[in-house]
Amino acid sequence: MEVELFGDERLDMLYRDEVRIIQSKEVFSFSIDAVLLANFANPHNGGKGTIVDLGTGNGAIPLFMAHKVTGHIIGIEIQPRLADMARRSIALNDLDDKITVINKDMKDIFTDIFPGSVETVVSNPPYFAATVQSHKNPNEHYAIARHEIKADLKLVSYTAKKLLKSGGHFYMVHRPDRLFEILDALRAENLIPKRIQFVYPKVGKEANMVLIESIKNGRLTGAQILPPVIVHNADGTYRDEVWAIYEGRNHD
Amino acid sequence: MEVELFGDERLDMLYRDEVRIIQSKEVFSFSIDAVLLANFANPHNGGKGTIVDLGTGNGAIPLFMAHKVTGHIIGIEIQPRLADMARRSIALNDLDDKITVINKDMKDIFTDIFPGSVETVVSNPPYFAATVQSHKNPNEHYAIARHEIKADLKLVSYTAKKLLKSGGHFYMVHRPDRLFEILDALRAENLIPKRIQFVYPKVGKEANMVLIESIKNGRLTGAQILPPVIVHNADGTYRDEVWAIYEGRNHD
Repeated sequence: MEVELFGDERLDMLYRDEVRIIQSKEVFSFSIDAVLLANFANPHNGGKGTIVDLGTGNGAIPLFMAHKVTGHIIGIEIQPRLADMARRSIALNDLDDKITVINKDMKDIFTDIFPGSVETVVSNPPYFAATVQSHKNPNEHYAIARHEIKADLKLVSYTAKKLLKSGGHFYMVHRPDRLFEILDALRAENLIPKRIQFVYPKVGKEANMVLIESIKNGRLTGAQILPPVIVHNADGTYRDEVWAIYEGRNHD
Repeated sequence: MEVELFGDERLDMLYRDEVRIIQSKEVFSFSIDAVLLANFANPHNGGKGTIVDLGTGNGAIPLFMAHKVTGHIIGIEIQPRLADMARRSIALNDLDDKITVINKDMKDIFTDIFPGSVETVVSNPPYFAATVQSHKNPNEHYAIARHEIKADLKLVSYTAKKLLKSGGHFYMVHRPDRLFEILDALRAENLIPKRIQFVYPKVGKEANMVLIESIKNGRLTGAQILPPVIVHNADGTYRDEVWAIYEGRNHD
């Protein structure tokens, strides 16, 4: 399958070249956050049923999860340019039957996806509160992906709750410095945190990422704090556990 | 200084024998939890003012903290036998001028310590909810130390809040499987969690301990997740970072 690449786009590989993804420094590149979230999200029942990625960007998470779920993945993306990149990457990987991209504001997706019909929701939402500065960002693509301009914690949690069946799972990656806000936003929607994993950039450093699995209408007991993920060696290279995820060795 | 040891008691050393502590397998031995909490608690202003340890047991935490604070430490202990062990250890270490033990239910300490007068509170409270079983435990000493028979999360948080000045710090060690209850109990008393550190028994294992620093009337922003503490090597021996704490090398 051949697809057209535009001027600023390049093709990146993952899982020992099994997954190819269109990236662009000008508008969007996935980060390790998406890779770790796709690895962390292990949908129950082998990933049967519908899986929705809220704010899919260039489709990284659906592309990285496609090999491990039996159900259909829907990526929601508000930015037409990113939705188009995602669709071309999906075609490039022959995954059109498995992944669909809907180019819409997540507020408006309930005409496309029936409330309470979804087994699994994943999201790598914007991390930073919207500020006057972020609205003025000359690169609107990055501003929308990184700042809560179009979707904030509240909207993402509300949308996940409304999409999910009772007992459905919601996997999110976010910043630990907003941990209390995150836990409050989830619980306000009766998305009950169950498994939490902190990600540290290096040995001896504070966590800079948190992965959270919540269950809709779950019971608020027994939080599990999974083993820490430490990303880099002292020399800045990826640690082997992270390479294993990039290369797909951890799910051989 | 000589003190009397009773039949089931032994003398343990810490910080390269600088601290000696009376232990008893029959009634109480401190655990690594107390060692890590005493290490984690770094009172501001060099530990000026009053420091209170809620449920001090055999006085382990005051003894381990004495070297690093300039203020006076008060240990509250409901069990007469443990309060007596703590007092004898304090005498043994010539720390009577620095540490006082009050043998009372923490509910009743406000006649001894004025509300709002304390700079720092520390606590290694009972971890487990009280059950019919725990009330029937033949070893009442351990039952009270481990189960929420005499003091639960709510009472410990309330007492810490009432003791502390506004802006005072509360350091607690607890179990991560009760994380949400812990955060709720703290926030209900306006003890705002600020720094959190998870402790993992080994590489690849879930956390089994959590250290939390809260500030009375603090602002709910910017949670810091400190670097993970991993206690044991694969062969079950302590990792060097933990030996360093036991030997006091980390504060040389």
